Amino acid sequence: MQCIESIKEFGGYLNRYRHDSAACHCEMTFSVYLPPQAETGRVPALYWLSGLTCTDENARVKAGAQRYAAEHGIALVFPDTSPRGDDVAGVAERYDLGKGAGFYVNATQPPWATHYQMYTYVSEELPALLEANLPLLPGVKSVSGHSMGGHGALICALKDPAGYKSVSAFAPICHPMESSWGQGCFTAYLGDDTQAWQAYDATFLVEAGARVADILIDQGTEDEFYAGKQLLPETFQAACARAGQAVTLRMQDGYDHSYHFIATFIGEHIAYHARALKGS
Amino acid sequence: MQCIESIKEFGGYLNRYRHDSAACHCEMTFSVYLPPQAETGRVPALYWLSGLTCTDENARVKAGAQRYAAEHGIALVFPDTSPRGDDVAGVAERYDLGKGAGFYVNATQPPWATHYQMYTYVSEELPALLEANLPLLPGVKSVSGHSMGGHGALICALKDPAGYKSVSAFAPICHPMESSWGQGCFTAYLGDDTQAWQAYDATFLVEAGARVADILIDQGTEDEFYAGKQLLPETFQAACARAGQAVTLRMQDGYDHSYHFIATFIGEHIAYHARALKGS
Repeated sequence: MQCIESIKEFGGYLNRYRHDSAACHCEMTFSVYLPPQAETGRVPALYWLSGLTCTDENARVKAGAQRYAAEHGIALVFPDTSPRGDDVAGVAERYDLGKGAGFYVNATQPPWATHYQMYTYVSEELPALLEANLPLLPGVKSVSGHSMGGHGALICALKDPAGYKSVSAFAPICHPMESSWGQGCFTAYLGDDTQAWQAYDATFLVEAGARVADILIDQGTEDEFYAGKQLLPETFQAACARAGQAVTLRMQDGYDHSYHFIATFIGEHIAYHARALKGS
Repeated sequence: MQCIESIKEFGGYLNRYRHDSAACHCEMTFSVYLPPQAETGRVPALYWLSGLTCTDENARVKAGAQRYAAEHGIALVFPDTSPRGDDVAGVAERYDLGKGAGFYVNATQPPWATHYQMYTYVSEELPALLEANLPLLPGVKSVSGHSMGGHGALICALKDPAGYKSVSAFAPICHPMESSWGQGCFTAYLGDDTQAWQAYDATFLVEAGARVADILIDQGTEDEFYAGKQLLPETFQAACARAGQAVTLRMQDGYDHSYHFIATFIGEHIAYHARALKGS
């Protein structure tokens, strides 16, 4: 991996890297914030999975997370949301399929399967790469994300409970099999057989017995995609209640789907992850 | 003025407005963050003047200032950096003249003089408009800014010491008469006679006797425009020392010119302004 940019922030460094991804078969770009504590020792990492249309850039600029990461001594990892490049399949006129919309699944269908292996990329390839090359504590990681990335965070933790110390999400797509965004991408990436979709649906995973210690979710009440039934947090909450899975769903009055909502509550999420990451 | 967007953040509201500017003879867009305290009473205001290429959007998204404004109960005002619109003179191929580069002066030369009246706009028209229409404490305002906007903040305070409770700046253009950015804009907006430039040059104003209670400046040591002698903070510091003007210039080791630098120190600046604004 090659460092292509390094910017000092809150006493640490916000770095950007490029590398050849084995999982995605293309060059990928990501960012990592290394807090000041990483200069003298290894630190735990919080993976942040972004939403539709984002790259690694959005959250690092808009979320205001670096301040809290520096306070707690936690690295932030910002992957891209899909494979990129001229060789990679995409749909230029759509923001909700293809580039910028990888949905954190391993695609099985042409033309997507060649590059769209985002689940393996964010949950295996990237952690292994970073733990080998940066001052991170091996295996001490948590995950959070927004919207499509909130879905990604939930499935990463539910599919690999031992791999993450904690999980949280902002306005996640909790039940993609029942949202039009999820249905569109899952049909393209995974095919028409909805049984293949279940492995990437947080609500289904909880119903099927997956368990993590706790889940924190913030959802704005004025979120247009919540109103549009793309997110379905209550459906997930009900599934958790039936299954005995602990979840804290906080309905945040008056907040929308934007990074201004995330900025408001990211400090509480990072404190939540810090407790789990530091306890390890 | 018409509110065109309102987003809840940190318990308050980040609003965007459009209005017909009498000073600039065109429609102007600006943003205001109203902290939660503004729901029950009038609050003081910090005007933030942005740098080259910016609109009202950059700082409200990237600076991370709203958190601190909510803590201290201070409104943030984000004006645009120039007049806008098809009728407004501009130079499409230049980022450092015309649209996005108003330099907070009142232009006297054609074709700029018709619309480029940014000094009057940010220091008179906008405060009067906002104090009449929003829950702001009349006359209780401070000013800060970045780069070209840091220059703007310094000259606003030095030209009207009674108008501002405090002033600070990030990487300001301290002596535009001696920077190529400033020379380019001042020649275009104010003409070839450099005597006309002096009214908008912070270093000259201090040398000529202008006084404010205190000035706080942060400057990153790895700032490419500092290295390129566009900013000249030491020249300003020396002029202040000769004139007996208090100034605190903090050279911040390793920081660049970006909003990541601003985000790191904006909390200290807002606390600095809060002390002055609350003391009034």
